Amino acid sequence: MATNRQILLAARPTGFPKPTDFRLVESAVPEPAAGQFLVAVSYLSVDPYMRGRMNAARSYADPQKLDEVMGGGTVGKVIASRHDGFREGDYVSGFSGWQEYALSDGQGVMKVDPHRAPLSAFLGVLGMPGMTAYFGLLEVCAPRAGETVVVSGAAGAVGSAVGQIAKIHGCRVVGIAGGDDKTRWIVDDLGFDAAINYKTEPTHARLKELCPGGIDCYFDNVGGEITDGIFPLMNTSGRVSVCGQISMYNLEKPETGPRLLPLVLVRTLKVQGFLVFQYAARYGEAFPKMAGWLREGKLKYRETVAHGIENAVSAFLGMLRGENIGKQLVKISDN
Amino acid sequence: MATNRQILLAARPTGFPKPTDFRLVESAVPEPAAGQFLVAVSYLSVDPYMRGRMNAARSYADPQKLDEVMGGGTVGKVIASRHDGFREGDYVSGFSGWQEYALSDGQGVMKVDPHRAPLSAFLGVLGMPGMTAYFGLLEVCAPRAGETVVVSGAAGAVGSAVGQIAKIHGCRVVGIAGGDDKTRWIVDDLGFDAAINYKTEPTHARLKELCPGGIDCYFDNVGGEITDGIFPLMNTSGRVSVCGQISMYNLEKPETGPRLLPLVLVRTLKVQGFLVFQYAARYGEAFPKMAGWLREGKLKYRETVAHGIENAVSAFLGMLRGENIGKQLVKISDN
Repeated sequence: MATNRQILLAARPTGFPKPTDFRLVESAVPEPAAGQFLVAVSYLSVDPYMRGRMNAARSYADPQKLDEVMGGGTVGKVIASRHDGFREGDYVSGFSGWQEYALSDGQGVMKVDPHRAPLSAFLGVLGMPGMTAYFGLLEVCAPRAGETVVVSGAAGAVGSAVGQIAKIHGCRVVGIAGGDDKTRWIVDDLGFDAAINYKTEPTHARLKELCPGGIDCYFDNVGGEITDGIFPLMNTSGRVSVCGQISMYNLEKPETGPRLLPLVLVRTLKVQGFLVFQYAARYGEAFPKMAGWLREGKLKYRETVAHGIENAVSAFLGMLRGENIGKQLVKISDN
Repeated sequence: MATNRQILLAARPTGFPKPTDFRLVESAVPEPAAGQFLVAVSYLSVDPYMRGRMNAARSYADPQKLDEVMGGGTVGKVIASRHDGFREGDYVSGFSGWQEYALSDGQGVMKVDPHRAPLSAFLGVLGMPGMTAYFGLLEVCAPRAGETVVVSGAAGAVGSAVGQIAKIHGCRVVGIAGGDDKTRWIVDDLGFDAAINYKTEPTHARLKELCPGGIDCYFDNVGGEITDGIFPLMNTSGRVSVCGQISMYNLEKPETGPRLLPLVLVRTLKVQGFLVFQYAARYGEAFPKMAGWLREGKLKYRETVAHGIENAVSAFLGMLRGENIGKQLVKISDN
């Protein structure tokens, strides 16, 4: 009998999560009942938002339950089915979580075509991060050609797509990332106009040099001091898309910072938080565009891949520390 | 020869302005040249935004120049004219500033009908503060019937109109103001559902009690700690209209405060600064509605009136300290 390995949330972290906040358990691979199918997971996704769900407080999603499988997006292959809509051999994306095998009744599961793009891309540029970039930039910031767009977390799965979509729309794009390998990648390979390594460069001063005409749109993945330095450079009627605040997810108590509302007032800024799920009804509009840009080579992506469920926790912690370039994935099987 | 008294900005204030930051000067009342007319000012308006213009830094408007007449809205009567569009006896609103008589070439000047509403109302509920309330609430917050709207600075010229317009649109309205006379007025006379005196009540705790279903829209006139306490009570997809930040206008150096962007993110809030002038092309749409509500008794207002140009400075400083109820005006003449 085959074994299913799963990672559960064992404890709610205080501050930065520890490996002991998770627990790997083994059980028998389940058999699908009538109306169910069994997925062998190929890749699972680890994402910044998961840190928020590990706290007890409800944020936009219900908290991750203790002693249950860590939730998360996956792609995989149907290996047994008693469901009319899914057949053995189908490739699917869904929300199976941190495990090797998962039963499903089909809810929230979508078939994907691995001939259209590599399977893993459906967790990245053609998946939730890609949709996040598309709608968060185009709907919330609504950049116009010639405007200056700044992206933080620019070498991550979302940020790297945001910058390229902004370039496709004729903007000048400056990315902020933590590492020379990251800044080189987004400028040399992705075509960002400039990049700042916030770990070694004075971010605010460099932004001033790189954006002499000010900043029209800011796509914020990080919050904190980097974002503090950007608000004073925003132009009148600038737009800030608040997608993530990763610099604050692991704080034991909330930080204070400069008050930003006086700038929101005098620059008549629009600052808007959003969740990709708000745009779920419109994914069908974004997907063919993203797939088209991918095919045309206008939209590139990169993956950092850990191997094996036993490395999911370290991949997640590494991603929270910014060790990944592009989309952080965990490869589970060669399906 | 008649004398024109004017108040000039004598020095840029550090922190809270002092009477010595202003200077009263006298000169001869000028004669209109061809294409000009002369206005005898009836009322001049003192408004919070003027404090921002007294600093050297450009905010949304150019700074008030030193040794020039303090800028500001006025209503008055044309007493001599060599301009084809304006006749002796016309009543006008404009931007004549802190002086008793002003020449004009007609730019930015509008005729007003004192039979439609008392002349002073064109500086308040039918003027800039009224337009600010109308567009800042209806366009930026876009409240729906049944939603809960909170207004700070609720007994001021803008806030008192905001709350009433929200009531007209079927909202539940809670006002925050500094003084029992103010809270009584907005509840008993204006029909706010509840009010909090922030000087004597714990604002955040009282808001929690008064808004058990959370806050959908927040119209912010004050910023600072009051606003800090409101963000955590905002509902998902709430809207914040940033109209003023009066609690911070007189700080010698910027304050820090709790970071608000994490809440903007998880609650998917829209936080937007605006200036009434952005809606100038649409005043004609708002004006008849405001005038109609005024006539129907759905929109009430109150004025705090100082008398004589020599009292303009103390009226302005008193307004910055929150001593006024409703619109703070300075009456210059009985025209």
